[in-house]
Amino acid sequence: MAEISKNDWFYEYFTDNAKFGIKIKEHLVDTKSDFQKIDFYDSYEYGRFFTLDGFIMLTERDEFIYHEMLVHLPMAVVSDAKNVLIIGGGDGGAVRELTRYAGIEHIDMVEIDKVVVDLCKKHLPQTACKLEEPRVTLHFCDGIEFVKNARKKYDLILVDSTDPVGVGEGLFSQEFYENCAKIMTDNAVMINQHESPYYEGDAREMERAHKKLAAVFPICRVYQFHMPTYASGHWLFGFASRTREPLDFDADAWNALQIKTNYYNTDLHRGCFALPNYVLKRLKNAEAK
Amino acid sequence: MAEISKNDWFYEYFTDNAKFGIKIKEHLVDTKSDFQKIDFYDSYEYGRFFTLDGFIMLTERDEFIYHEMLVHLPMAVVSDAKNVLIIGGGDGGAVRELTRYAGIEHIDMVEIDKVVVDLCKKHLPQTACKLEEPRVTLHFCDGIEFVKNARKKYDLILVDSTDPVGVGEGLFSQEFYENCAKIMTDNAVMINQHESPYYEGDAREMERAHKKLAAVFPICRVYQFHMPTYASGHWLFGFASRTREPLDFDADAWNALQIKTNYYNTDLHRGCFALPNYVLKRLKNAEAK
Repeated sequence: MAEISKNDWFYEYFTDNAKFGIKIKEHLVDTKSDFQKIDFYDSYEYGRFFTLDGFIMLTERDEFIYHEMLVHLPMAVVSDAKNVLIIGGGDGGAVRELTRYAGIEHIDMVEIDKVVVDLCKKHLPQTACKLEEPRVTLHFCDGIEFVKNARKKYDLILVDSTDPVGVGEGLFSQEFYENCAKIMTDNAVMINQHESPYYEGDAREMERAHKKLAAVFPICRVYQFHMPTYASGHWLFGFASRTREPLDFDADAWNALQIKTNYYNTDLHRGCFALPNYVLKRLKNAEAK
Repeated sequence: MAEISKNDWFYEYFTDNAKFGIKIKEHLVDTKSDFQKIDFYDSYEYGRFFTLDGFIMLTERDEFIYHEMLVHLPMAVVSDAKNVLIIGGGDGGAVRELTRYAGIEHIDMVEIDKVVVDLCKKHLPQTACKLEEPRVTLHFCDGIEFVKNARKKYDLILVDSTDPVGVGEGLFSQEFYENCAKIMTDNAVMINQHESPYYEGDAREMERAHKKLAAVFPICRVYQFHMPTYASGHWLFGFASRTREPLDFDADAWNALQIKTNYYNTDLHRGCFALPNYVLKRLKNAEAK
């Protein structure tokens, strides 16, 4: 839920009773696709940003945090990944980070909403800049159907989805995770948008996602990062695999790649799996349900 | 800077162009002490909260995060601490957590503003509940003068201050840190409110504090935590000592105390010192200045 007030503040409601306001310079795009309401803004504090159904997807200022943690952490683990699948990720940020690895041979990106991609190409070149790379194939279709019917196997799957409401909902289902598992190589890793532990509505979605993932994957870990423009600033990714533990990785090998990052580093890789007690408790309860 | 709009939203401005809104049930206190503007509110999302000069100091809902990270992390390092000094901390949250350690013999709390303490006792018993403990002595005076003139030595000093504007400013000066160092036992630790790395104004204060601390203490580390109601949700404490490294601690010994916490745990203790690259870079630059 969002609202634009008369004096040019965009508001995202974290809950009915807490909201976050961004002073906007310009409302660049106000449209509706077949799937969702799409708005692009320019702002003083965060540069350009866009929202889907009123929720902030990314801002130019802090998107590096989300995309670095989404991509570099698993790539430090499955360092020999050749085939990568992205579900969602229409802004192109995940592709941009992945294309920094010479070893990756092919990236399939499955985005349901072509309008988002087209608008990001126009208004957010900072993230959409690598979508034309020869190694990248864009599929404008439903990610749920794509994984159900895919025959190819992937070394890494990134579920870079919206929240589990509306168009993103099916990407949080157990059937979807099972179909992902089927198209993963033995040592593959899947990373998913795991919501946030703080506000009750987000925390319940975190639990639901975790419960379903834990039912499918023997290894199912959660890591955290500081994301200033997402609700509470405390956001999570899930790390799921049949065989790979996230802390079993070669930090020296990743550092030798000399990929310059502004957020991710190999110490943080180890640190970000150490979660607060109140988060651990809810995740544990979810697993037991 | 804060504003109460007509429809009962309290706003804290993170910057001129970003703000955080809390729907309020009741404006409980609207007063001015000799030192600052003081407001207490009741809210739907965060329970009661109070502000000094318009900045949120704590909310009932998330103060456990701040106070647990302020107290339990250093107490796991200086586990034999007997004498503790708190500068600021008028809400009583630091005292509450410290009194859970049987080994602590005495706590001096130096708060410049008695009005804050009196109002917290009345409106925030959740944090102010242990201020009457026999081991606690309240000193209503200037922390800068207190440390300059103190003769007693402390095993742990907690600088639980406001931001470095107005009344809190002197608590971020090098002279203050030097005077703190003089009244610390050889193996003592000082923890200070180290601001936030994200918004430019906060990040500059982080750098300034770090530079001054690094000039006084040979060991000067920074740790992070997720604080939903502070600007960006990404907040820091400084850990300063002549001799003690924060990761050189006995996790089993702390766990054997069986202190129940909702945020802090000994894995997180290790994880929270792993900072993002953009934060490390600014801290390193500050040290070199």
